[in-house]
Amino acid sequence: MSSDPLVIFTPSGKRGHVPAGTPVLTAARQLGVDLDSVCGGRGICSKCQITPSFGSFPKHGVTVEQDALSDWNAVEARYDEKRGLATGRRLGCQAKIMSDVVIDVPPESQVHRQVVRKEAAQRDITMDPATRLYFVEVEEPDMHQPTGDLERLSRALSEQWQVGAVTAVPSLMTKLQPVLRKGKWQVTVALHKGHRDAAAQIIDIWPGLHEGGLYGLAIDLGSTTIAAHLTDLATGAVVASSGLMNPQIRFGEDLMSRVSYAMMNPGGEVEMTTAVREALNDLTRAIADDAAIDPALIVEAVFVCNPVMHHLLLGLDPVELGQAPFALATSEAMDLPARDLDLTVMNPRAQVYVLPCIAGHVGADAAAVALSEEPGKSDDLVLIVDVGTNAEILLGDKRGVLACSSPTGPAFEGAQISSGQRAAPGAIERIEIDPITKEPRFRVIGSSLWSNEDGFDAAIATTGITGICGSGIIEAVAEMRMAGLLDDSGLIGSAEQTGTARSIPEGRTHAYLIYDASAEGGPRITVTQGDIRAIQLAKSALYAGARLLMDNMDVDRVDRVVLAGAFGAHISTKHAMVLGMIPDAPLDKVTSAGNAAGTGARIALCNIGARAEIERVVRQITKVETAIEPKFQDHFVAANAIPHKTDPFPELAKVVDLPKPSFNSGGEEMTGRRRRRRA
Amino acid sequence: MSSDPLVIFTPSGKRGHVPAGTPVLTAARQLGVDLDSVCGGRGICSKCQITPSFGSFPKHGVTVEQDALSDWNAVEARYDEKRGLATGRRLGCQAKIMSDVVIDVPPESQVHRQVVRKEAAQRDITMDPATRLYFVEVEEPDMHQPTGDLERLSRALSEQWQVGAVTAVPSLMTKLQPVLRKGKWQVTVALHKGHRDAAAQIIDIWPGLHEGGLYGLAIDLGSTTIAAHLTDLATGAVVASSGLMNPQIRFGEDLMSRVSYAMMNPGGEVEMTTAVREALNDLTRAIADDAAIDPALIVEAVFVCNPVMHHLLLGLDPVELGQAPFALATSEAMDLPARDLDLTVMNPRAQVYVLPCIAGHVGADAAAVALSEEPGKSDDLVLIVDVGTNAEILLGDKRGVLACSSPTGPAFEGAQISSGQRAAPGAIERIEIDPITKEPRFRVIGSSLWSNEDGFDAAIATTGITGICGSGIIEAVAEMRMAGLLDDSGLIGSAEQTGTARSIPEGRTHAYLIYDASAEGGPRITVTQGDIRAIQLAKSALYAGARLLMDNMDVDRVDRVVLAGAFGAHISTKHAMVLGMIPDAPLDKVTSAGNAAGTGARIALCNIGARAEIERVVRQITKVETAIEPKFQDHFVAANAIPHKTDPFPELAKVVDLPKPSFNSGGEEMTGRRRRRRA
Repeated sequence: MSSDPLVIFTPSGKRGHVPAGTPVLTAARQLGVDLDSVCGGRGICSKCQITPSFGSFPKHGVTVEQDALSDWNAVEARYDEKRGLATGRRLGCQAKIMSDVVIDVPPESQVHRQVVRKEAAQRDITMDPATRLYFVEVEEPDMHQPTGDLERLSRALSEQWQVGAVTAVPSLMTKLQPVLRKGKWQVTVALHKGHRDAAAQIIDIWPGLHEGGLYGLAIDLGSTTIAAHLTDLATGAVVASSGLMNPQIRFGEDLMSRVSYAMMNPGGEVEMTTAVREALNDLTRAIADDAAIDPALIVEAVFVCNPVMHHLLLGLDPVELGQAPFALATSEAMDLPARDLDLTVMNPRAQVYVLPCIAGHVGADAAAVALSEEPGKSDDLVLIVDVGTNAEILLGDKRGVLACSSPTGPAFEGAQISSGQRAAPGAIERIEIDPITKEPRFRVIGSSLWSNEDGFDAAIATTGITGICGSGIIEAVAEMRMAGLLDDSGLIGSAEQTGTARSIPEGRTHAYLIYDASAEGGPRITVTQGDIRAIQLAKSALYAGARLLMDNMDVDRVDRVVLAGAFGAHISTKHAMVLGMIPDAPLDKVTSAGNAAGTGARIALCNIGARAEIERVVRQITKVETAIEPKFQDHFVAANAIPHKTDPFPELAKVVDLPKPSFNSGGEEMTGRRRRRRA
Repeated sequence: MSSDPLVIFTPSGKRGHVPAGTPVLTAARQLGVDLDSVCGGRGICSKCQITPSFGSFPKHGVTVEQDALSDWNAVEARYDEKRGLATGRRLGCQAKIMSDVVIDVPPESQVHRQVVRKEAAQRDITMDPATRLYFVEVEEPDMHQPTGDLERLSRALSEQWQVGAVTAVPSLMTKLQPVLRKGKWQVTVALHKGHRDAAAQIIDIWPGLHEGGLYGLAIDLGSTTIAAHLTDLATGAVVASSGLMNPQIRFGEDLMSRVSYAMMNPGGEVEMTTAVREALNDLTRAIADDAAIDPALIVEAVFVCNPVMHHLLLGLDPVELGQAPFALATSEAMDLPARDLDLTVMNPRAQVYVLPCIAGHVGADAAAVALSEEPGKSDDLVLIVDVGTNAEILLGDKRGVLACSSPTGPAFEGAQISSGQRAAPGAIERIEIDPITKEPRFRVIGSSLWSNEDGFDAAIATTGITGICGSGIIEAVAEMRMAGLLDDSGLIGSAEQTGTARSIPEGRTHAYLIYDASAEGGPRITVTQGDIRAIQLAKSALYAGARLLMDNMDVDRVDRVVLAGAFGAHISTKHAMVLGMIPDAPLDKVTSAGNAAGTGARIALCNIGARAEIERVVRQITKVETAIEPKFQDHFVAANAIPHKTDPFPELAKVVDLPKPSFNSGGEEMTGRRRRRRA
C-alpha cells in the first residue's frame, strides 16, 4: 500500500494516492475529476472551489484529520477579502493534500455540470459548450527568436491547456497586440472549438482574467414568432428570454405565401432576409439590455427553424421549397460566422450553428424537437407534435422514427381568429363553459383568478381583457363542443338550438359571446363560425399528418403523445383531444413538453457533442412527404369533424361525455356541402 | 505475359497492360499518368487530348498498328467540327486502346505541366494551384430521399473526383440552386483546396462546362510600388501585369515614417489600410480590363510584402514594428477570404494567401525570395539582395540560411533624387561616361539607341527625356566614380578638379550635368551632391546588412551574389559593385534575378505545395536584427566610401581600374566630418 495520502473526490467517487503537497486541482486533473479552472491554477479565477470533509468515513475506509489540507494561504486570504469565500470552501489550486482526505466538488465548480430543466425533466443538459474561456500567460516577444504574438499565444494555449491549432480572423488580430500588452502578457481568450476538423478560432481576447462571462443565444425562428433565450455558457442558466413577431409576416402569414412572394417579386427573398436579420439584431440588443450585459459577450447563436425560415435566414431563395420535389439548398447543419448573416449586434466574431434539416418540409425545428425529446430512445411508441404555423410531427420508438410536417396555418397562434391575439397580458388563455347554463368563465394572462372569482376585476385592472390567445381558442372550441354549443361538424348552434342567448347571430351564421364590454367602449370577444372553420382547418392538418405517419408505421394507435411548440406547455391536453388535434390516447399519456424546439436549440448551444448527435440522428429519420401523399388529403377531410369522424376515441370517451354530434338530428351526419349551403 | 494490349505513355515512360477497349484516359489514370480532364471523360472539355504514335518502336519493344486505337467516333467528330482538333490528336476519353500502342501526352494536356520562367531559368513552376475546376453531374433531388442540393453536389465531387469534404459560404449557396437547374444538373465548380486540414471550399459554380478559365493574382506589395501579375491558374501563364504607386506614400515615404504616422495619428493605420485596399481594388479592375476578363474569374490572390505592409494590408496597427522587440502580430502564413480584406473587385469568394514573415523586419517578401531563389538548396554560398525601399538580404547555402533587412530608403527607386523618377518611358536607365572626355551618353526607356547614335532624337520624340530612374542613378554614380568625377568619399569634383565643364556649381557643392534642354523649356538633368548622399546612404545600408550576415556566418567573402527586386533585373551588376552596394565577388558570379519576390508569389499561386514548403523553410531561417546590432552601425559608416573603405575588392579590381580615391591628395583619406565641413 502506498504511503502517499489517499484523496477521495465526491460526488464522483474517484480516488487515488498523490504525493503529500499535491494541490487539490492537480490531484483532480490526475484522477480525471471534473474540477473547473479558467486561470489554470493561478489562484485568480476561483472557479476551482472545493469543500474538504473531516472526520471518519467508514464507507470510504478513511479518517480525515483537521490538517489534511495545507493551511489557508495568502492567496486564499486575499481572495476571501476581495470576493468572499463561503465557510468551509478552499481554492483547489492553493490547498495542498497533506494526508488522507475526502473532497467534495460542488456543482458550480464542475466544468461539465448538469443543467436541470425546470419545465420538464426528460433531459438534462451536460455543459460542454463550443466556446470556452482560457486564461493564459504568454511569452514576451524576443527579437532574437522572432515569432508573432499570435504564434506565442497559440503555443501558450497548447502548453497550458492542451489546445490544438488555433486561428484568428483579421478583426481579432487587430485587438491582439494591444490586449496582450495591456494584460502584461496575461490574457483570457474565448476559444470556439472547431466543428468537425476545423481549427479552434479565437473569438475574443481580454487583458488579464475576464470575469464578464460568455453568453449564447438559442433562437427558435418561427414563421410567426422569434423566441430567443440568452444562456450563460458556463452555467447553462437562461439569464433572459425575449421574443418578437417575425417581421416577414408582412410578406405573407404562412410559409407558402412567403415562398410565393419570393416567386412573384424579384428580389423579394432578399427583402425578407433583410427583414428577419434586422429583427434578430433588434432582438439581440433587447435581450442583452434585459440581462444588462454587453452584447459583445454573446459569442454564439444556435438556430432552429423550418426549412423556409432556414433558407430566408441564410439568404437563400426559398422558391424550390414551394414546389415538388421540395429540394433544400442544403440539408446539413451549418457552421458559419454571424457576420455572414449580418448579425452585427452580437460579438463581431460570434459563430452561428444552424441545426440540420430533415427534409424540404421538415426543418431544423423538427430536428431540435428530436434532439430534445429523443423519440429514437423511447421504449413505447411516441407521437410528438410541435404546434406552430407549420406543425412538425415525429412518430417513433427505438425501432425507428418517422417525420413529416403539416401546414396548420397560424390559427393555433391566435392569428386569423376574429378576437385572436398573441399570448400577452390581457389575453384569455383558459376558458370553461358550464354545460348546463352555457355560461363561460375564463382566465387571462397576468392573473390566476377565474373571471367569476372575487377580485378578478381588480386583478386585471391594468391589463384589461384584450382578446383570446392560441391556447384560449383551443379551449373555447373544445368547451363549446362539450357544452353542446357546437355540433361535430363545427356548426355553432342558434340560441334556439343551444338554449343560450350567448349564441348570437353573426351574419348568416352564429357566434358565441364570451365577453362584452362594448357598452363601456371595451372589446366584445366572440368565437365566430369563421374562427371555428380556421381551427378546424388547422387541427385537421395536424391530425392528418399524425395519421399519415401512423399509416406509414402501420399502427392504429400510439402509446403516448407529446405536445410541443412555443405555446405547447399552455395547451390543455384534454381540450386538444376533444378538438381532435391528436389521435386518441390515454389522457395521462398526453403531456406537454413546452417549447421542445427551443430546448433543442439550448441543448445544442450548451453541448457541442449534441450537435454531432443530432446530425447523426437526422440522417436516420425516415421522412414522409405530406404534400404528395393522396392519403393525407383523405385524412384531412375525415378529420374535419370535432373530434373526428372515422377513428374511434375510446380513451377520450372515458373522460369526456360528448353531447349529440349534430343539431340536425339525433346523430344524423351532415356533409360539408350541405353545411355550407345552410351557412 | 499478358495478352492484354500494352500501352506506353510518353514523355513519362509509364507503361502497363489494359484490357482491349479501355479508353486512353482510363488507362492513364490507372497507370498514374498525368493526363488532364475537367469533364471527367464525358467528351466535352477536350483537356485530355493525346497523340498516338504508330510504327515500330524498338526502344519500347513494341510495334503499333494503325488500328491500335478505336476509330474516330462521333464525339470526336463533333468536337473537331465545333472547335477543331489538331491533326493526329485524339480525345483521350473517347479513343479506346485496341492493341499495343505508344501515346504521347502533350504538355498542354498535363495537369501538372511545367511553366518555364522566361527571365531566369533557375526554377520552373509545376502547376498545382489551390483552386481548380471540376465538372460534375449531380443527382437530381428525390423527395422520397430528401437531401440538400449541396449534399448531392458534394457526393458527386466525391464519387467523380475523389474530393473530400466541401464547404460553401452563404453567398455561394445563393447561386447553387439556380445554377444546378440551369445546367440541367451538370455544373463546373471551382474548388479551393483547404490549406492545412481545412475542408475544400466551393469558390464558384457555373452551369454546364465552364470554359472561361480561372485566374489568380500574384501581388508584390512594396512600400513604394504595387506590382501584380494576373496568372492563368490552368497554364501558369502571366496574361497581364500591372503596377501602381502605393498610395500610402502620402502618409510617409518609407516604412518607419508610416509607422510614425500610425503612432501620431489615432486611426492613422485604418486610413493607410483603407488606402492600400482601395488601390488593390483599382489594380484588380485595371488588370482584368487589360486581359479582357471578368474580374470575378480571379479566384485567388497571393501577397508578398514587408512586415509593415503586411500589417497594414491585414488591418493591423504596425506600431509594434517601430520599436524593439519589433513584435509581429502574426508571423505565420495567412489564409483568408479576400472579402475580409475588402478586396471586393475579384470573385466575392476569392481566397487570399499571404506568405509567412521571417521576423519583425524581414517580411513575406524575403520569404518569397527564399522560395524563388532557394538559397537553402545552394551548394555554394549565395548572397541574395532584394533591393527596394527596404532591402531584404539572405545569405546561405545547404548548411543554413541567415536573413536580415536593411532600411535603404527609396533612393534606389528614383525617389529623393533631384532628377529622379520611376522607371517609365522617357527615364534615363543606362548611362556611360567617357573617362577621357567626361562626356556622357545614355539610353532612355522606350528606345534601344544610345543618345549619341543616329536616330536617337527621332526615337524618343514621343516620350522625350524626362528624368532618371533607379537603375540610371546607380549607373550614373558608378560611372562618375570610374570617370574620376567623384572621389571615394562621394564628393563631386569642381570643373577644375575634374577638367570638365559638366561639373557645375550647385550651391556650395557641385553637380554633374547629364542633359540640358532648359533653353528649349525642357528638363535639365543633373546628379547633385545631394543625390550622391542619398545613394551613399542607401548603398551603405545595403552593404552593411550583407556584411552583418557575413559576420554572423563568419565568412569574409561569398561565392555568388544575386540581385533581386522590382528593378533588380535592370541593375548593371558591374555598376552595383563599383558603387559598393554588394561585397566583392567575381563579376560573372553576380547575377540579376528580376523580381524574385514577385516570382515567389507566382510560385505560391501556381503550386499549393510551395506554400507548405516556404512555411517550413521560413521556420529554419536564422533571423538577424540589424536595428540593434552595434556592428551594423560600424559597417554602415565604413561603407560610406565608394566602393567601400575597409574591405578589399580584388574581384572588382580585375575588371575596373578605379581612379585615385580622393581629389585632395594622391590617396589621402577624408573623414566624413571633414567632408561635411567642406560641403
